[in-house]
Amino acid sequence: MTVEATEAGTLRALLDREAIRDLGYRFADACNRRDMVAFRALWIPEGVWDIGAPKTFRSEGIETIAGTCSYLLALWDFFVQMPHAPVITVEGDRATSSWTMTEHANNAEQNQGYLNYGMYDDVCVRTPEGWKYKSRSYRYIYLDESAAPGMPHGFFAPPRV
Amino acid sequence: MTVEATEAGTLRALLDREAIRDLGYRFADACNRRDMVAFRALWIPEGVWDIGAPKTFRSEGIETIAGTCSYLLALWDFFVQMPHAPVITVEGDRATSSWTMTEHANNAEQNQGYLNYGMYDDVCVRTPEGWKYKSRSYRYIYLDESAAPGMPHGFFAPPRV
Amino acid sequence: MTVEATEAGTLRALLDREAIRDLGYRFADACNRRDMVAFRALWIPEGVWDIGAPKTFRSEGIETIAGTCSYLLALWDFFVQMPHAPVITVEGDRATSSWTMTEHANNAEQNQGYLNYGMYDDVCVRTPEGWKYKSRSYRYIYLDESAAPGMPHGFFAPPRV
Repeated sequence: MTVEATEAGTLRALLDREAIRDLGYRFADACNRRDMVAFRALWIPEGVWDIGAPKTFRSEGIETIAGTCSYLLALWDFFVQMPHAPVITVEGDRATSSWTMTEHANNAEQNQGYLNYGMYDDVCVRTPEGWKYKSRSYRYIYLDESAAPGMPHGFFAPPRV
Repeated sequence: MTVEATEAGTLRALLDREAIRDLGYRFADACNRRDMVAFRALWIPEGVWDIGAPKTFRSEGIETIAGTCSYLLALWDFFVQMPHAPVITVEGDRATSSWTMTEHANNAEQNQGYLNYGMYDDVCVRTPEGWKYKSRSYRYIYLDESAAPGMPHGFFAPPRV
Repeated sequence: MTVEATEAGTLRALLDREAIRDLGYRFADACNRRDMVAFRALWIPEGVWDIGAPKTFRSEGIETIAGTCSYLLALWDFFVQMPHAPVITVEGDRATSSWTMTEHANNAEQNQGYLNYGMYDDVCVRTPEGWKYKSRSYRYIYLDESAAPGMPHGFFAPPRV
């Protein structure tokens, strides 16, 4: 009985970690597909999205956050976010996650690229609809704004089958 | 008893997700090691591998798929596939997975590079030997064919210890 | 009863895989934050860290390994490690993991970059404090030492919240 209880707890811990990692993967997937419905579903209504220097901004509330994301994605001919190395800590109904990130985007007309590395530090909360982002805070490690030499191809990816 | 049944179901769901994610990681690992035995083990015999513009092709059946993969890898001095952001949906014995991808390759003699971002949309099926790919469909987001400035080093990686 | 035993075993297998993958993610996270306390916690005292040509070295023992890591990180204005495609095999209290890796670093003053792809082949062991690295062995696939054109930004990331 104790063993079973422990195993149920362990299973729940694995499920929590899986769900929190999934948030980060779905965030990238939604940005890369420009799927704002999927993007909005990752946040609690009062979420906070905070980006550090040199592109500093802070968006509070899901309406503002979604508007900011749409605005940012529309700047680029293509945008790709690639999340790496999730480190997750769960404490009851709150959790933190950390990611090392690569992003690459380009606007050919303006001869403006956007290749960067950074780190996300997140606070996640358990809701009746599953784990959601309460906050995501980005810090740049490196930023290269030289224009990308390649060509975008059909970046309006179709929805998943 | 109900709880135990639910937990068994939950555990199975986690195992399914782990196995489907593992397919994508092993696909990249097999390509990066040029290990065609490992590559073939990921597909059902009647699998379909489909790549979109501007490198359009479609390979049907494991023999054709493995031949295509060997052919493509032989074009390059090095080839690296880096899968990101798996998003998985399991429905019984069928599942879909989506990945954001980076690939980088080069052929110095031909002054030809191959740096690209794209997305894989996959259909996976449960078989007696575990989950396998039924289809993988790739769509390019960005392609840069300028030559890579660096040097390849021992890309015939040894088999795993 | 048999089913329960099997499920306990399956749950343990999932936990093992999660913990071994977590080692690789925490290794990258610790390097990217220059957090040597976190870095040291990933190794057994008698660990071995081995890097292949053209940057060949071999460090034995956690003191030497940690010293080497600090020395290497101090060479760069920024350093980012991005691990991909973990392939894990667990056999009792020993496991192997394999990763495809991207690393990017730069020293602007010396006009020296460090963009590389490679593969880690690891041996992990189960200890009373959880899974740890017994050895990590890196083989380069590609190395580009041309200077990075962008700018580093606050790479001394804060500790996780």
